[in-house]
Amino acid sequence: MSLVVVGSVALDSVETPANGRRDDVLGGSAVFFSYAASFFTPVCLAGVIGEDWPPEHLKMLRDRNIDTAGLQTIAGGKTFRWSGRYAQNMNDRETLSLNLNVMAQFDPVLPEHYRKCQFLFLANGATEIQMRVMDQCPGAELVVADTMDHWIVNDRENVLKMLKRVNGLVLNDSEARLLTGDENLVRAGRDVLRLGPRFVVIKKGEHGAMFFSQHETYVLPAFPTCQVVDPTGAGDCFAGGMMGYLAEQGNVESKTLKQALAYGTIVASFCVEDFSLDRLRQIDRASIDRRMAEYRQMLTF
Amino acid sequence: MSLVVVGSVALDSVETPANGRRDDVLGGSAVFFSYAASFFTPVCLAGVIGEDWPPEHLKMLRDRNIDTAGLQTIAGGKTFRWSGRYAQNMNDRETLSLNLNVMAQFDPVLPEHYRKCQFLFLANGATEIQMRVMDQCPGAELVVADTMDHWIVNDRENVLKMLKRVNGLVLNDSEARLLTGDENLVRAGRDVLRLGPRFVVIKKGEHGAMFFSQHETYVLPAFPTCQVVDPTGAGDCFAGGMMGYLAEQGNVESKTLKQALAYGTIVASFCVEDFSLDRLRQIDRASIDRRMAEYRQMLTF
Repeated sequence: MSLVVVGSVALDSVETPANGRRDDVLGGSAVFFSYAASFFTPVCLAGVIGEDWPPEHLKMLRDRNIDTAGLQTIAGGKTFRWSGRYAQNMNDRETLSLNLNVMAQFDPVLPEHYRKCQFLFLANGATEIQMRVMDQCPGAELVVADTMDHWIVNDRENVLKMLKRVNGLVLNDSEARLLTGDENLVRAGRDVLRLGPRFVVIKKGEHGAMFFSQHETYVLPAFPTCQVVDPTGAGDCFAGGMMGYLAEQGNVESKTLKQALAYGTIVASFCVEDFSLDRLRQIDRASIDRRMAEYRQMLTF
Repeated sequence: MSLVVVGSVALDSVETPANGRRDDVLGGSAVFFSYAASFFTPVCLAGVIGEDWPPEHLKMLRDRNIDTAGLQTIAGGKTFRWSGRYAQNMNDRETLSLNLNVMAQFDPVLPEHYRKCQFLFLANGATEIQMRVMDQCPGAELVVADTMDHWIVNDRENVLKMLKRVNGLVLNDSEARLLTGDENLVRAGRDVLRLGPRFVVIKKGEHGAMFFSQHETYVLPAFPTCQVVDPTGAGDCFAGGMMGYLAEQGNVESKTLKQALAYGTIVASFCVEDFSLDRLRQIDRASIDRRMAEYRQMLTF
């Protein structure tokens, strides 16, 4: 199945307590997502960049079978920049600066071949934009969105509209609590289901992910890794691994969905092991399958 | 295998944000542990109580095949009391008051038949006492201890001595970080192994538990429950389910250990569903096995 992702493309500056800092490294939700998905399937990426975007990034993405026809360049513009600092626990982070730059004008007009996609992922971004993207892909069989505290708090009405239109929602634990007002994640997940989506995935970072549908509730733990260098993008890699696997399999049966969550978990576990895409660039599908075998073994008793 | 637990016996007063409060309900690490273990095996409980201890509690424990020969009553003494308040998230809690009462004089002298036990669990308590109990059970094949931030901070030297003598250690995530100074739980677990025990279990509350031995590292998630009324005692029930299952099986092979962790997880998931032992008193081994089947299903993909 063809897979399209629309989201941010960024240059990140990241400070970590134990592994130093990196400046202006490749980031953004759509970039992490599409790289993760590309282990499984071709991906069409839509986003926006400025003229300062290093051309080698584009080449790297294309070499991964990532279609960048939907990546607009704004003349004279600057690429979206985020900088943040991780706390000692590598879970909490502080945003040091955020410059939307070209993202402020982002109004994606998808190339014709993107509009025929079967699977669509709306990475974190303005909810109105997410809905305008959906309008452009009327034939999509599976539409999954991510969202964020900012939109839940400041654009709740649109988030609720969006939830009535998507098939799946991926969000993190604090966002699920914020959206539903319930501290208990099992109840929160079920509450989100009532808002529209057919399935909901709550990401719990180092503690794994929870899945909710009408007939199923389950939790899968994160793959334990001792090498947590930079968690930036792990949630997007989780979603990319999940959607990439679903697109590869070409169905969204409940069995395939659970396998997809497991693949998302494994790709995310690699992502955190270095800055930016650095660790993912060292591995291949076989590395993922080897870790998946260990993961299955871990959960068998 | 015969199983002995030594630890606190308490009367707890618990305030919760959504389910009101309960005063002077049955609690204490050795009580939760032994009730949880009693689903699997007879248990010998050692602890101390005051004259204010309601006699019906004793009857209830004995009806569960829990040997209370090692439960000393201090004439004129008052039972250990703890009172606490849970935060909205049901994870953080604040101790409102703590009266050691008879626990301050607790120096267990185990009955003769306890001393021949094969499996021994040292529930949370003063580290010196834990070691004096070990001295009394020289033939124990499996000695597992719990510990707590208080002892790690204020009695580190003894904690390190104790770790060289036990086969297993069960502690929670913040305690593992405190003991090792490492925020990453995978590294922290492996660091604790180097201090002596053959295996280490890190309890992560609602996020499950991690296991470490020389050749194995794994994580099992908690069983997702939407009915979290009172988490008091869940960690002790986890340990009780784990040790009870091991004693029932009569071996500590790595396969049995993993099953034991899963059983601990399931018993703990029932414990949190009501105050004190109230939920556990409504269930039987078949309830545990039914939930275990769901749990296995949840982790199969």
